[in-house]
Amino acid sequence: MNLPRTDKPRIVVIGGGFAGLNLAKSLNTRKYQIVLLDRNNYHTFQPLMYQVASAGLEPDSIAYPLRKKFRNMKSVHFRIADVIRVDSKEKSITTSIGELSYDYLVIATGAKTNFFGMENVEKFSMPMKSLVESLNLRSRILEQFEEALIQEQVSEVNKRLTFVIAGGGATGVELAGALSELKNKILPKDYPDLDIRNMSIHIIEGSDRLLSAMSLKSSHKAEKFLKKLGVNIWTSKRVKDYDGETVLTADGMEIPTKTLIWAAGVEANPIDGFQAEDFNRSRFLIDPHCQLINHANIYAIGDVAALASKDKKPLPMLASVAMQQGNYLAKYFNKNRKFREFKYIDKGTMATIGRNKAVVDLGRFKFQGTMAWFVWMFVHVMLLVGFRNRMIVLVNWFWNYISYNNGSRLIIRKSRENHLLSELQKDEKLTHS
Amino acid sequence: MNLPRTDKPRIVVIGGGFAGLNLAKSLNTRKYQIVLLDRNNYHTFQPLMYQVASAGLEPDSIAYPLRKKFRNMKSVHFRIADVIRVDSKEKSITTSIGELSYDYLVIATGAKTNFFGMENVEKFSMPMKSLVESLNLRSRILEQFEEALIQEQVSEVNKRLTFVIAGGGATGVELAGALSELKNKILPKDYPDLDIRNMSIHIIEGSDRLLSAMSLKSSHKAEKFLKKLGVNIWTSKRVKDYDGETVLTADGMEIPTKTLIWAAGVEANPIDGFQAEDFNRSRFLIDPHCQLINHANIYAIGDVAALASKDKKPLPMLASVAMQQGNYLAKYFNKNRKFREFKYIDKGTMATIGRNKAVVDLGRFKFQGTMAWFVWMFVHVMLLVGFRNRMIVLVNWFWNYISYNNGSRLIIRKSRENHLLSELQKDEKLTHS
Repeated sequence: MNLPRTDKPRIVVIGGGFAGLNLAKSLNTRKYQIVLLDRNNYHTFQPLMYQVASAGLEPDSIAYPLRKKFRNMKSVHFRIADVIRVDSKEKSITTSIGELSYDYLVIATGAKTNFFGMENVEKFSMPMKSLVESLNLRSRILEQFEEALIQEQVSEVNKRLTFVIAGGGATGVELAGALSELKNKILPKDYPDLDIRNMSIHIIEGSDRLLSAMSLKSSHKAEKFLKKLGVNIWTSKRVKDYDGETVLTADGMEIPTKTLIWAAGVEANPIDGFQAEDFNRSRFLIDPHCQLINHANIYAIGDVAALASKDKKPLPMLASVAMQQGNYLAKYFNKNRKFREFKYIDKGTMATIGRNKAVVDLGRFKFQGTMAWFVWMFVHVMLLVGFRNRMIVLVNWFWNYISYNNGSRLIIRKSRENHLLSELQKDEKLTHS
Repeated sequence: MNLPRTDKPRIVVIGGGFAGLNLAKSLNTRKYQIVLLDRNNYHTFQPLMYQVASAGLEPDSIAYPLRKKFRNMKSVHFRIADVIRVDSKEKSITTSIGELSYDYLVIATGAKTNFFGMENVEKFSMPMKSLVESLNLRSRILEQFEEALIQEQVSEVNKRLTFVIAGGGATGVELAGALSELKNKILPKDYPDLDIRNMSIHIIEGSDRLLSAMSLKSSHKAEKFLKKLGVNIWTSKRVKDYDGETVLTADGMEIPTKTLIWAAGVEANPIDGFQAEDFNRSRFLIDPHCQLINHANIYAIGDVAALASKDKKPLPMLASVAMQQGNYLAKYFNKNRKFREFKYIDKGTMATIGRNKAVVDLGRFKFQGTMAWFVWMFVHVMLLVGFRNRMIVLVNWFWNYISYNNGSRLIIRKSRENHLLSELQKDEKLTHS
């Protein structure tokens, strides 16, 4: 890699998500040479990916070019790269674009979809853990309506108008809400030839309630909101198999559908070159300074790291943990690694179901409905990176609010090609790991 | 295809471009059942595709969902389909989604890229004749800068920073202008590690001047504008071969480059089921009512049709011809096929080179520079379909004008995948035709 050393120590940050970006942008460039690596040239605002998948927002509104954040900075070097292996003895990493030495390494590679070893589910379901996957899912959803139109048999029509979401966490709940708004407000006008009453949306959740990370009250209210919108909720059920035609649950329920959306699990996305004792499951074990317990000079932050919380459980895989750890580690480095321990401040959790329908848990304050919806919108707009993105999202939401009409429903890629694309990406992943 | 007949005669329109869309939206739905077929679910505003390729506009600003145009209309049926063959005796067409009968058929399938039989050029160059191709080209261009960064040899850096455009028509000229604005205003800030002075842009044009369809004055002025922006112009030269590394011209000139953009030729995109005598080259021969000369009940409009003009030459392949023919044919049908002949009104031609730099030929009026640039912008915004698209494009242009900063430069697909995707699309095309 054509990247000369300077007289400043070099910090290599792997991953430009919430953790890595917040770290890289706050590091003192007079003290360090900073190298940021990511597979993509943009940061993705993951909490709004479901709106890309449901055709409410365009990808450029929730993605921010990483280079833009570091414009004109001579001491921050961004490179597109896949990291293959860390050699902690040599203090160097092997990447798709060559070797790179470091003085300090920060691993912020986030999480990936967990299919729990179910090969069929991995093959036939649609995950939504990247911008490309969200776009693929959008094309897939819109294509179902086009295909339903040309079917002769009612069973074939229904299979295409049935959407099953595995996982009743925030992603599953928000996507179900967005799909039912499509159903109730938008698609009937787009598809006068189609009896949209045949469209059905299902959530399958393993635990006994939706949003199980939130309060009981929010959980019940979210369920009530979704039922009102016509979503079918199946709790205490797990998907066991899916052949592309029928979802089978562990207790024998069958739902015929062409679309299973997989939002039922994530796992950390670590890097090669470490031992089993470095991990809690696949998350790197870190000390309260975010340093790997067995490796000096290597740090991990965000979803890929497991810091024991007060009750011994690792902190949840949340954007707010990642952001706080990124900011913390920047201060830690800027103060020459003499700084207090990291403390996670729980700023609450929230989820939106639809127009005037959201649930918010802010410590002791729990509220639902219109007020919660406005809080949700405000918080998400403020968290977006970049003035342009904030403006575009605000204008889009406002426009959708008054017109009941989502943005462009373009099918830019056909599903068949998308499938092949994902296969290609998987192959690529395999050859790299 | 699950599409019942009504008591109204059925008009099938193949293609939702300028010709097909203008026809379908103006047909009288009380008189006819209308079926519109297209490969995509959107209409593309082709004159602005070069701004998608150069990362100035997002695809949703220049694409308009075809269903949106026909919302709530019960007598207009849009379907995504590839048309494979016409059986004019049976009055039916074979498509990728089944058979379809018609009373009147309108072919508006437009044009496709012409590589003049050069297989290597087709394999290695980047065309820009669809939205997907424009997006691929954008990713390809942006990737060159990322790749240049990690090269050790100067010759390899330069190969990636050299962009060759074959074809000095409006597309080539506008793209060259947009690339040089990227070079002069935007990339130096994004890539402080890269010496952007090594970037070079070339146009290779077969005739002796750029914009050969426009006036001599506009042609010379465009050349002057481009030279001022640093573009290298090679007239009276033709690309003979390209192996992905070096462009070779017929007279022996070689330019090492990783990117050859092919804007040097288009040809009509006809349908199977016709005889040689139905065509002028690959364009359908039509009479002054846009009817195929040898087939009653079949019409052709836009780039795929060849209507002899006063001087016996077919009308040029221009958006304005396509729109006028679409509007004409709608009136013709609405007046029960008793209507005057089609007359093309030349409304002038224009091209933009960059900020404050455009050339306009309006009959006897020819002007260039800032005024021409405003006229160009006004005309293009007004021609865009949909209020939302007009607003978004206006806001984007205004923002770019004051900030010298184009929109998001996201590489959403990597070139390698894009290449495979295009291969897939080609395969699909082959199996269908």
